[in-house]
Amino acid sequence: MKDFIFHNPTKIIFGKTALQKLSENASVYGKKIALTYGKGSIKQNGLYDKVMAELKGFEVREFGGIEPNPRVETIRKAIEEFRDFNPDLILAVGGGSVIDGSKLISAALHYTGDPWDILINSPAKPKHYVPLATVLTFAATCSEMDSFAVITNWETHEKLAFSRDEVYPKFSILNPEFTYSVSREQTAYGLVDAFSHVLEQYLTISENVMLQDRWAESLLTTMKENALTVLENPTDYHYRSTAMYSATMALNGFISMGVNQDWATHEIEHELSAFYDIPHGAGLAIITPRWMRVMKAEKLPKLAQFGRRVWGLAGDEDEMAEGAIQKTFDFFESLGIRMNAAEWGITDEHFPVMTGRLEERQVGEIPLTVKQIRAILTSI
Amino acid sequence: MKDFIFHNPTKIIFGKTALQKLSENASVYGKKIALTYGKGSIKQNGLYDKVMAELKGFEVREFGGIEPNPRVETIRKAIEEFRDFNPDLILAVGGGSVIDGSKLISAALHYTGDPWDILINSPAKPKHYVPLATVLTFAATCSEMDSFAVITNWETHEKLAFSRDEVYPKFSILNPEFTYSVSREQTAYGLVDAFSHVLEQYLTISENVMLQDRWAESLLTTMKENALTVLENPTDYHYRSTAMYSATMALNGFISMGVNQDWATHEIEHELSAFYDIPHGAGLAIITPRWMRVMKAEKLPKLAQFGRRVWGLAGDEDEMAEGAIQKTFDFFESLGIRMNAAEWGITDEHFPVMTGRLEERQVGEIPLTVKQIRAILTSI
Repeated sequence: MKDFIFHNPTKIIFGKTALQKLSENASVYGKKIALTYGKGSIKQNGLYDKVMAELKGFEVREFGGIEPNPRVETIRKAIEEFRDFNPDLILAVGGGSVIDGSKLISAALHYTGDPWDILINSPAKPKHYVPLATVLTFAATCSEMDSFAVITNWETHEKLAFSRDEVYPKFSILNPEFTYSVSREQTAYGLVDAFSHVLEQYLTISENVMLQDRWAESLLTTMKENALTVLENPTDYHYRSTAMYSATMALNGFISMGVNQDWATHEIEHELSAFYDIPHGAGLAIITPRWMRVMKAEKLPKLAQFGRRVWGLAGDEDEMAEGAIQKTFDFFESLGIRMNAAEWGITDEHFPVMTGRLEERQVGEIPLTVKQIRAILTSI
Repeated sequence: MKDFIFHNPTKIIFGKTALQKLSENASVYGKKIALTYGKGSIKQNGLYDKVMAELKGFEVREFGGIEPNPRVETIRKAIEEFRDFNPDLILAVGGGSVIDGSKLISAALHYTGDPWDILINSPAKPKHYVPLATVLTFAATCSEMDSFAVITNWETHEKLAFSRDEVYPKFSILNPEFTYSVSREQTAYGLVDAFSHVLEQYLTISENVMLQDRWAESLLTTMKENALTVLENPTDYHYRSTAMYSATMALNGFISMGVNQDWATHEIEHELSAFYDIPHGAGLAIITPRWMRVMKAEKLPKLAQFGRRVWGLAGDEDEMAEGAIQKTFDFFESLGIRMNAAEWGITDEHFPVMTGRLEERQVGEIPLTVKQIRAILTSI
């Protein structure tokens, strides 16, 4: 087990009654609330009205239209909208994209430079952050209980992440019912994203991490058991709550203490969706099994353990690893995801630029070689 | 899954280099440190000197002598010692008893009434708490990452718990090496305590808690696999770190989200050790399998699952439950613990008083009946 520091200060308010606790928790920060949301689905499904009803007595200014794969261009507009208002709290109502975008608003609202400064190398360090809270509507990213945000710059085709302790949400309201209206397709992408988050903290060469491995395997097993049932029963509280709870537990730091991590598949996917506006979960589904195959020799013992403990396979190490790769591919495909790049209109046109960037960023537990990156990209 | 709120703000600093981070983390709170510890083992094993070396530049006042099963009488003395000093931070260096006692100091130092007021029914609510931090020397209670403290009043033979959000340690330093000198016997009691904490969040009739069950089973499996090896290799970093890490994860709220809990065995043990000064872990080892037997009918499905998933048993529900009870007894006995009350000089003299108190406090997921309490006590 490696030395580590763990500190996750987010308060999670979970369940059917969670939204009733919004007002008391928000009022700790003040009376002026900057409400952020996405493309307007919360107005159609009634959540907007429910949130506003709980915010009686607060002064609310809103900014809608934060898109999937949130863009810095949009965040610049939100900051223009909110700067005079000087909110006490930003309340993000949405999924990972709305929350990620709102984290950049939190960091950049009182920063005088351009928000993109916070994402780039040698990033700017704002001095003041606006407290952030969330009402989650999509189970996937764990942005509701982490300090990360991923933002896209469409002008430069860059998709970069930033992390600051100050943008951990102060509190997050998780009512699984608020995900009932998420489409089957989007639900599937969320499941893949969360499953992939666990893999990236698990498929490593960490030593002496008996408990961490078992917790990761518990998540993977639960997610795979729950995935098809939640797709087939989108308004079942049990399945939706298991999906939501699992996704939050997958990336809140609980399973990453003292272990190596390997974020290569996420890094490769970010390159892919910086050029092609495909869903993050679809990109991950395509890349993950191909990454596993290219990395099989390096990751053999853990891939075999994954096969044995999660997929119930038997055999020698190579057989269990091979089986685990195939099971992972089949699992993603069974969720209805198109598993080949060509089906998404992805060609090899941008592969050289992507390869160069990935090589430069040194992605992976042991940084991927150019040869490995090419082998992965050409097999998707 | 039941509705829940989760919020654990403690920062965990874990590993061989953890103590080096004491000074920077303590200085956030100020320069005046009230140092608390137990019976002086930290002076013998060198930890006291290491801590003091890290606290150069701080003004330190100390109070030693907080005993196992910490007594309110001792805490009153500590408060006398520290009241004029007006510390910015209490730094508890020790195990669960020192930390629990220090939590009461944190709560009562600026409270004008008697500290015991904070433990009793309709408890006093102090307005100001002194921030608390810990350096852990014993893996068992998770007091280093929770808001609970258990205090004994030896005059009235009462052992009661209190919980306040304000006494979550601000940070806790966990270096497994600091537990190398813990005796085999005490290490075994710590293992039982932590194992029991998991059982009390697991052996319930909770529904739809797929992930929570698996995380609890991950802890139980890891603990049982690691227990004998850590006893036999007390200076092995891997085994000590697994024991320490598991004990913290067992009661920091991670596995209790959305589930029922059943603290009957802890409640019964508190009654036992309020009359007999036996180690908490020994009391739990004695009571737990007897409690399981009396509760077998009520807890049958979960006991069977415990048998199947943790102990690898097969058969019908009753066989797996029976097997799990026996395996639990054998496991505790294999750690060298005397498993019968008579071996500890415990007679039935105080059973009527204990039974009355337990009945009044309504202990258990479904409160234990007098008949059940008697059946448990007379079988220990």
